[in-house]
Amino acid sequence: MVLKKLGKQTLQFNSIPSIKSWASVVGPMEGQGPLADYFDVIWDNTLGSEKTWEKAEQKLMQYSMELALEKAGLLPTDLDFYLAGDLLNQIITANFTAGSLGVPFFGLFGACSTLAEGLALAGVLIDGGYAAKVGVSASSHHDTAERQFRFPTELGVQRPKTAQWTVTGCGSFVVENKSHGFKITQATIGKVVDMGTMNANDMGTAMAPAAFDTIQTHLQDTGRKIDDYDLIITGDLGLLGNNILKELLKKQGMDTGNVSDCGILIYSPEQDTHSGGSGCGCSAVVLAGYLLEQMRKGVYKRIFLVGTGALLSPTSSFQGNSIPCIAHGVVLEYS
Amino acid sequence: MVLKKLGKQTLQFNSIPSIKSWASVVGPMEGQGPLADYFDVIWDNTLGSEKTWEKAEQKLMQYSMELALEKAGLLPTDLDFYLAGDLLNQIITANFTAGSLGVPFFGLFGACSTLAEGLALAGVLIDGGYAAKVGVSASSHHDTAERQFRFPTELGVQRPKTAQWTVTGCGSFVVENKSHGFKITQATIGKVVDMGTMNANDMGTAMAPAAFDTIQTHLQDTGRKIDDYDLIITGDLGLLGNNILKELLKKQGMDTGNVSDCGILIYSPEQDTHSGGSGCGCSAVVLAGYLLEQMRKGVYKRIFLVGTGALLSPTSSFQGNSIPCIAHGVVLEYS
Repeated sequence: MVLKKLGKQTLQFNSIPSIKSWASVVGPMEGQGPLADYFDVIWDNTLGSEKTWEKAEQKLMQYSMELALEKAGLLPTDLDFYLAGDLLNQIITANFTAGSLGVPFFGLFGACSTLAEGLALAGVLIDGGYAAKVGVSASSHHDTAERQFRFPTELGVQRPKTAQWTVTGCGSFVVENKSHGFKITQATIGKVVDMGTMNANDMGTAMAPAAFDTIQTHLQDTGRKIDDYDLIITGDLGLLGNNILKELLKKQGMDTGNVSDCGILIYSPEQDTHSGGSGCGCSAVVLAGYLLEQMRKGVYKRIFLVGTGALLSPTSSFQGNSIPCIAHGVVLEYS
Repeated sequence: MVLKKLGKQTLQFNSIPSIKSWASVVGPMEGQGPLADYFDVIWDNTLGSEKTWEKAEQKLMQYSMELALEKAGLLPTDLDFYLAGDLLNQIITANFTAGSLGVPFFGLFGACSTLAEGLALAGVLIDGGYAAKVGVSASSHHDTAERQFRFPTELGVQRPKTAQWTVTGCGSFVVENKSHGFKITQATIGKVVDMGTMNANDMGTAMAPAAFDTIQTHLQDTGRKIDDYDLIITGDLGLLGNNILKELLKKQGMDTGNVSDCGILIYSPEQDTHSGGSGCGCSAVVLAGYLLEQMRKGVYKRIFLVGTGALLSPTSSFQGNSIPCIAHGVVLEYS
């Protein structure tokens, strides 16, 4: 039996699952950034009328999924499955949202690679013939993530220059089994890459080798060259990690003029986020808010979105472990 | 296009993915229970020569997957994908194990429903033609779970009678695209059910309605009756939750003589675990260590394994939220 795979790690979707609709809801910081015009909803505070940031994050996810459904003229019950994840312990944002939507649910954890993991599995469920419509969400919230992984933001701890700023936002997508417009044609599933880095305030350096591994494997699996893509965009290496990735690619003789990162795009240098944005929500809102619109305009015809996840926990860091990283890539084509 | 689905929630696997091999590694408490003879390896302490319980849990997962591979005459690199999850924040057990195995990895979170979620997605990847061999693991560890979700075990906090005892153990499986022996024929993907219960020391009561919903939906989707199964086994409702589930089924006029629970089977009443076992590892080791052997002996021909997950976090409980629960079911048939 011939598998629907290219090489060792790349899934090939022949029936071409497509993104039918999408929506992004973000916080005030993201609303002051260069992509502000592309987001559907911008909150003017980080609580969104909720009593806790955790409940606010759940609202971001639920509202963005409901908005994506509304744009497609669908109800939650029209979805065959819902795939979602976030950064919080036990992915409570996704769990409570799945409860509100009332749709059969697969919970995912891939840190900032979660959106790519979700789109890849949506591709499998649809291309494999198990679903007609699948919802996918990935969220993060600056204040929930900081107090869980580092320090409560109220403490005002100074962030090192290598740190990235966790995005407050959620991007949600409806993927369907009709080949039109925004197609998901392939997905390259990453292996965990652990280069022994231990600095939990420098995720970009930790994750760059995983992104490199997935990009190199993808090009080998598909027989493509790097300039067969209009854009190769990671999410989220930040400025530091993006530089390392480019160096690694250049050493293989590749031109990196088309290599960018969602964490770089989402904030302006004046916003002083240091190394750029991060969090599951970052690549989700940059894709939902900006990249798909650029594709519709014809700026990009084929992009490779590479979600990069740092799979550590505070406990694993406290116990002296290095940071295991992963990168999942999905090929998006517009025609 | 006709979907490979029955009803709204049940995936139908026509090419019949099958479990080729499996292994279970457990701690001392499980090794003193009634299923001791069925486990592959029993540790005589909970640290397994590691310095922390978290590293010990990772060793449980890695060793059980390597053992399952060895039984099948395979290397990790023979796997197309690895699907795994556990109870720890950011599923670090699975992340580090995936790093050691070096296989393309999908990280899952479904609390105690994780094994069923993994077997269902393994079924999709194989039946859909995307993979020939998939590894699946789910683990838990009593001491890592207690200190993360409740209190460090060194404190000696008295447990209420409604509490379940988190299993120390991991079950791992190799699923392949050859129809033989132990077949995964269907999977019913659960919706989140939240009945508003808030007692984090009584998971069985919280999860029973989710198990009921998935069993009832499965029977409707497939047009089967409850006695078309030799065994319907939840993982893990414990004694209390099992009683509630049986009451709910009886109210629908169903005979519940074939309804049992992995958390009840794994410990004897003399072990004083109160309501029975729980944790991602519980259903995984009971399936790997006991149920598949019973199927091989002909005791059971068709079982419905229903993984039940309580999708709360300490943070969501502290903030006054109820417990969202989910149940995923997989049909296993032996011939």
